[in-house]
Amino acid sequence: MSDRQLTHRTPVAVLGLGPMGRALAATLISAGTPTTVWNRTPERAGPLVALGATAAPTVTGAVRAAPVVITCLRDPAAVDAVLAAHDDWAGRTLVDVTTGRPDEARALADWAAGQRVDLVKGAILTPTPTIGTPAATALWCGSRSGFDAVRSVLAAFGGTPGYLGPDPGAAAAYDMALLDLFGTAVSGLTHAFALASAEGIAPRSFARYAAGIAPMLAEMTARFADQLTEDRFPGDRSTVASAGAGLGHVIATTDAHGIDSGVLRAARSVVEQAIAAGHGDDGLARLARSLAPARPA
Amino acid sequence: MSDRQLTHRTPVAVLGLGPMGRALAATLISAGTPTTVWNRTPERAGPLVALGATAAPTVTGAVRAAPVVITCLRDPAAVDAVLAAHDDWAGRTLVDVTTGRPDEARALADWAAGQRVDLVKGAILTPTPTIGTPAATALWCGSRSGFDAVRSVLAAFGGTPGYLGPDPGAAAAYDMALLDLFGTAVSGLTHAFALASAEGIAPRSFARYAAGIAPMLAEMTARFADQLTEDRFPGDRSTVASAGAGLGHVIATTDAHGIDSGVLRAARSVVEQAIAAGHGDDGLARLARSLAPARPA
Repeated sequence: MSDRQLTHRTPVAVLGLGPMGRALAATLISAGTPTTVWNRTPERAGPLVALGATAAPTVTGAVRAAPVVITCLRDPAAVDAVLAAHDDWAGRTLVDVTTGRPDEARALADWAAGQRVDLVKGAILTPTPTIGTPAATALWCGSRSGFDAVRSVLAAFGGTPGYLGPDPGAAAAYDMALLDLFGTAVSGLTHAFALASAEGIAPRSFARYAAGIAPMLAEMTARFADQLTEDRFPGDRSTVASAGAGLGHVIATTDAHGIDSGVLRAARSVVEQAIAAGHGDDGLARLARSLAPARPA
Repeated sequence: MSDRQLTHRTPVAVLGLGPMGRALAATLISAGTPTTVWNRTPERAGPLVALGATAAPTVTGAVRAAPVVITCLRDPAAVDAVLAAHDDWAGRTLVDVTTGRPDEARALADWAAGQRVDLVKGAILTPTPTIGTPAATALWCGSRSGFDAVRSVLAAFGGTPGYLGPDPGAAAAYDMALLDLFGTAVSGLTHAFALASAEGIAPRSFARYAAGIAPMLAEMTARFADQLTEDRFPGDRSTVASAGAGLGHVIATTDAHGIDSGVLRAARSVVEQAIAAGHGDDGLARLARSLAPARPA
């Protein structure tokens, strides 16, 4: 498959119809791509069939219908189960956008090499409503020839398909670090709403002021990257020590309301280790350096 | 003091010259306000004296110089120590912007009532570089007459001074919930940089994609407020169960690099409790409701 550029008329199979799989399939159908869909629980295919998709009753039926197969499943174990459900994958281009670890993506690439499958591994970084719009962002890696062949298919999903390189774990590596930030931020946001509620502050009243935190996060993301690159951590804005004091106030307030303070306590533990190492007067970006494992000598 | 509107010519004393105290004092000096400053370690006053401030050698000296006293100290215990260092506060307006808990602010108000002091309690929500600019945001509460009297002084700090009401703990309540979100987000950001680094991703390469998280946080802040107000948690974008799966991938990747995963594990524990309570298919805002303590019947 890898010596030719596929078009939006090349048949594509989408395996896995969770929210993201459904969004991908719907976008392909809108682009005029002949689209076959499969899901473990077949009812999910109904709305896509109404849009023009063909529902395959089995994985084999879906794979035989299309030279390009997209897998968008719950986790890499589910991908393995789907791959095992069909026995001749040779010549297919497999585009896997299932969330998982870098080492799992590399193991999948080993399987693909043994099956004469071109593996393109992707990580979709933006939520389902962005799919098919310019706001969509996805990262791709793995087979260069496979990526070139399916580039026009991936372009239907929106944004400009970016290729990180042949390491099949590269997209997952970015995905893990971004999920780390996203998951922790969601944890903080929901905990803050809970604490505000316990203090008698209505959700929309809190959100009015909490709206100021997102721009601070954007500013810190860029500034911390510069400081980590330059290995300097000025404490002119806020310091590791002041963050520790702030977390202490929040933990005490949280405890007084009987709300779980596990995340805050774990965050303070990291801060306290940095202070104990002599970095209390440094800026907050120092915490990233303190967390990093010691490099082997 | 409370029956008259003070002007920017009314003398003000600033007690506590950390980064925020210095920014407040410098802004007052720029506005032409006669400004007296005091700090436990007097060397900090030097640059402000060069700008036109008067350095007081003792708390008593500073308090006697000004009808309005601003305290900006490390924590409420430091405020108590400073208040105890002078024995006649009657008639002063005390503006305390020290970070602390709502109950500590209420205890300070009790002291103020006994001393015939008008207490205005404030929480400054934006970092020191915003002070004196329209980007500054601060919340004020406590004595209404005190707030009205010092409104023009507070206006020098930038933004429009907002008054939450007479409860002296109100500003601290907002401050705690905002610090909760801010501190947890910083924890996630620095951890994500550490994980990216362990995966061989340069800080600025990571920041290029991580820049997309801040707009998602802004969108979620508004959307979660609506969902919590309306008590409905649709799982159409991402679900509690998918967040749990994502955190599991990140924890495994983090552990493989020997990086502390305490914050992530604590966040997953909250997610798992929500799943166990039957909320796995709900949207992420449900986590705020799951965290909230049970209301007494």
